[in-house]
Amino acid sequence: MDVSKAKCNGNGNGNTNGVVANNGHAHGNDNTNGVATTDTGVVANNGHVNGNGIHRLPFHDDVVVNLDRGDPKMYYPFWRNIDERCVVTIKASELMSYFADVSPGGVFYQMPEFATVVKKLHCVVGNAAVEGRYIIAGTGSSQLFTVALRALAATVRHQANFPLPVVCAEPFYSCYQEALEEDKSEIYRWRGDAKEFKEEGPYVEVVTSPNNPDGTIRKPVVNREGGMVIADLAYYWPQYTPITASLNYDVMLFTLSKCTGHAGSRVGWAIVKDREVAANMIKQMSLMTIGSCREGQLRATKMLDFVATTYQQSFATRGRPFRVSHPSEEGLFEFGQRVLAERWAKLRSAVKHCGVFKLLEFPVMYCNFMCEHIQPNPAYAWMECITGEDAAGLLEGLNIKTRNGPRFGASPRYTRVSMLESDETFDLFIERLLTL
Amino acid sequence: MDVSKAKCNGNGNGNTNGVVANNGHAHGNDNTNGVATTDTGVVANNGHVNGNGIHRLPFHDDVVVNLDRGDPKMYYPFWRNIDERCVVTIKASELMSYFADVSPGGVFYQMPEFATVVKKLHCVVGNAAVEGRYIIAGTGSSQLFTVALRALAATVRHQANFPLPVVCAEPFYSCYQEALEEDKSEIYRWRGDAKEFKEEGPYVEVVTSPNNPDGTIRKPVVNREGGMVIADLAYYWPQYTPITASLNYDVMLFTLSKCTGHAGSRVGWAIVKDREVAANMIKQMSLMTIGSCREGQLRATKMLDFVATTYQQSFATRGRPFRVSHPSEEGLFEFGQRVLAERWAKLRSAVKHCGVFKLLEFPVMYCNFMCEHIQPNPAYAWMECITGEDAAGLLEGLNIKTRNGPRFGASPRYTRVSMLESDETFDLFIERLLTL
Repeated sequence: MDVSKAKCNGNGNGNTNGVVANNGHAHGNDNTNGVATTDTGVVANNGHVNGNGIHRLPFHDDVVVNLDRGDPKMYYPFWRNIDERCVVTIKASELMSYFADVSPGGVFYQMPEFATVVKKLHCVVGNAAVEGRYIIAGTGSSQLFTVALRALAATVRHQANFPLPVVCAEPFYSCYQEALEEDKSEIYRWRGDAKEFKEEGPYVEVVTSPNNPDGTIRKPVVNREGGMVIADLAYYWPQYTPITASLNYDVMLFTLSKCTGHAGSRVGWAIVKDREVAANMIKQMSLMTIGSCREGQLRATKMLDFVATTYQQSFATRGRPFRVSHPSEEGLFEFGQRVLAERWAKLRSAVKHCGVFKLLEFPVMYCNFMCEHIQPNPAYAWMECITGEDAAGLLEGLNIKTRNGPRFGASPRYTRVSMLESDETFDLFIERLLTL
Repeated sequence: MDVSKAKCNGNGNGNTNGVVANNGHAHGNDNTNGVATTDTGVVANNGHVNGNGIHRLPFHDDVVVNLDRGDPKMYYPFWRNIDERCVVTIKASELMSYFADVSPGGVFYQMPEFATVVKKLHCVVGNAAVEGRYIIAGTGSSQLFTVALRALAATVRHQANFPLPVVCAEPFYSCYQEALEEDKSEIYRWRGDAKEFKEEGPYVEVVTSPNNPDGTIRKPVVNREGGMVIADLAYYWPQYTPITASLNYDVMLFTLSKCTGHAGSRVGWAIVKDREVAANMIKQMSLMTIGSCREGQLRATKMLDFVATTYQQSFATRGRPFRVSHPSEEGLFEFGQRVLAERWAKLRSAVKHCGVFKLLEFPVMYCNFMCEHIQPNPAYAWMECITGEDAAGLLEGLNIKTRNGPRFGASPRYTRVSMLESDETFDLFIERLLTL
């Protein structure tokens, strides 16, 4: 592969890239093997580019359909439709200081409005307890995962059994293991499947609900003395699953990526019960990155406030359950639910037709937010090959890139398929699947 | 101290904060002891607040002047003056994807324009070699410091003497030690003063030039086989020091905070020579935070491009050296140089008057960028108490908060004073100093 390198020709008009070649590590854990994803999630499987650096082949067999990462492109049409209503404008002298909140009790790097609107949205949706809790912003929930682990480890530092074991029931989100193993910390250690964990003493169990990759609703499985829980609730929003309770874990993580679809902003938040844990998390945020990007916080505040305010007004004027006569009247959650439901129906039909894969069934439940019984529509399909063959390998043969079971601590007969890509990419996926 | 906690009252209009109380850890390494900084860097030393959460006491003795952190508020008037010319507008559907660069060789999370403009500015200023180098954005240079250490450690992972020693000549930037000790990594270890380091085998030396805290120009001091250098060049810009050479280290770190003064954006960049190191850094960025905030990148691109383009045009029409007849004609670097030179003159005069402290002298050098001999104007004053007393303690007695020598591996007779605060704060500092 050609590595672009810029010349310093004094006017900066050399090759505009000069950045690193993707050698299979460069996309980190998404393993795209040196090929670049286009804006639509469709990948050209050769290294040639046209003048603007993006090669868009026609959609035939030599185009890779990349459903490996959960890039939430499905939300693009929703926001495109209200582009001007949620515009953010920042002047040159704005947001310059490290300090965004100078009040006593403030998180120094965090705009007070951000915490306000996060609480407002959770109150509207009813998915997480916020009363008396601390809201802490991070560079995506991935940073907050590490930050929370460090803070929880600090609470048991005087005890003997270091490093603190970190477990999660299999199948678990692949990045937990990969991030912790790369982190190489002395104070905590990835220990894999929570169902196999038998040790005494303090430990952290990560509870991902709905679960990534399989969409199931989860609770802690270890439940022993000294256990601490980090609840990754990235997908606990009405478009993915019925909201059945306001959750109440000690540390809960959310991310803008999966709530509104703004993945590029790298904004996540933690809801934290304990004051000392929260204070330690802020200390970690300060040492790692001196807080998080204020432009990202501003944008997140705008988007989350739009969503929360829309529903507050809708409750007041239309009541519940929601009944929209046209997609243009949809709020974010109905939009997401409709698109995902349509996709799940197409996928189930295609899977049935090709007869090679099996999908989990999800029980209909009453959603406190929608005020009706609804069907879960997970963000990922956890596809099992009924013949026991390598599921990702089978799809790879159709030039469909997915994330294989072993990355999640599971068998290779499973693979994870993102349901969040653009319509174009998803339709191509279904088209290919039907050729099996 | 009162900890604000929000109630979930269904409309989100509870207490707007609900965030963590600053218990002395909450500001991380800036140790503000539970008091909040106001927008001007002046701190009220009690916990009372008025209706909008900020207490601004009149500037008498019971107001803390906080010069602990290098919050670059001095740049505010420059940008305020051109607010509309550098405005950034982002619509709802923009910057949504994880993927900002889909071309072969692209850094997946990084806008290609960002790398282009970083290279353009370095070419214009002549402070760092960019030809054939990789540009990698991070959440401030603090994240890139960790990311670079991990990547450099990976290059020697097969060798025996782990953890990889990390050293820096004393006095060293306090956050290196604090971040590494909190990181508790198995693969690298903070080992303190480079001048005392005698071991054989691989090591990393951090070279900060101009140095934080003392403003001196530095080169590596260990210079042994197996040594790797991370050059922290945050202050290697014309407002702080004459540009005498285009530096050429393997890994060089810069940050928007100290270049333009946009600290809140948390945008830093690394310039990396080796392809494998660059690829590993991108992998670490992916695992830690799935890249960096795109809104921050966009804003950084705007600001850096404004600065670079201004000078390109100035070179073409006015030539060098720069001669401006009025501050309104100044570019960023003349503005910064003028403000800092005025402050250093005031500080030297006050120090001479009070007779308690000593400051370093900096030699006049020829600046290749300004095309004339200029005086260095470091971002921090490294004040030594000539009686050998505790320097920070002495200033604390005047309600002036600074960062004490031991935090930098040095004697308590030294303390670091930020020269980057607002005019208001700096003038109050000088006023107090004159009462000694």
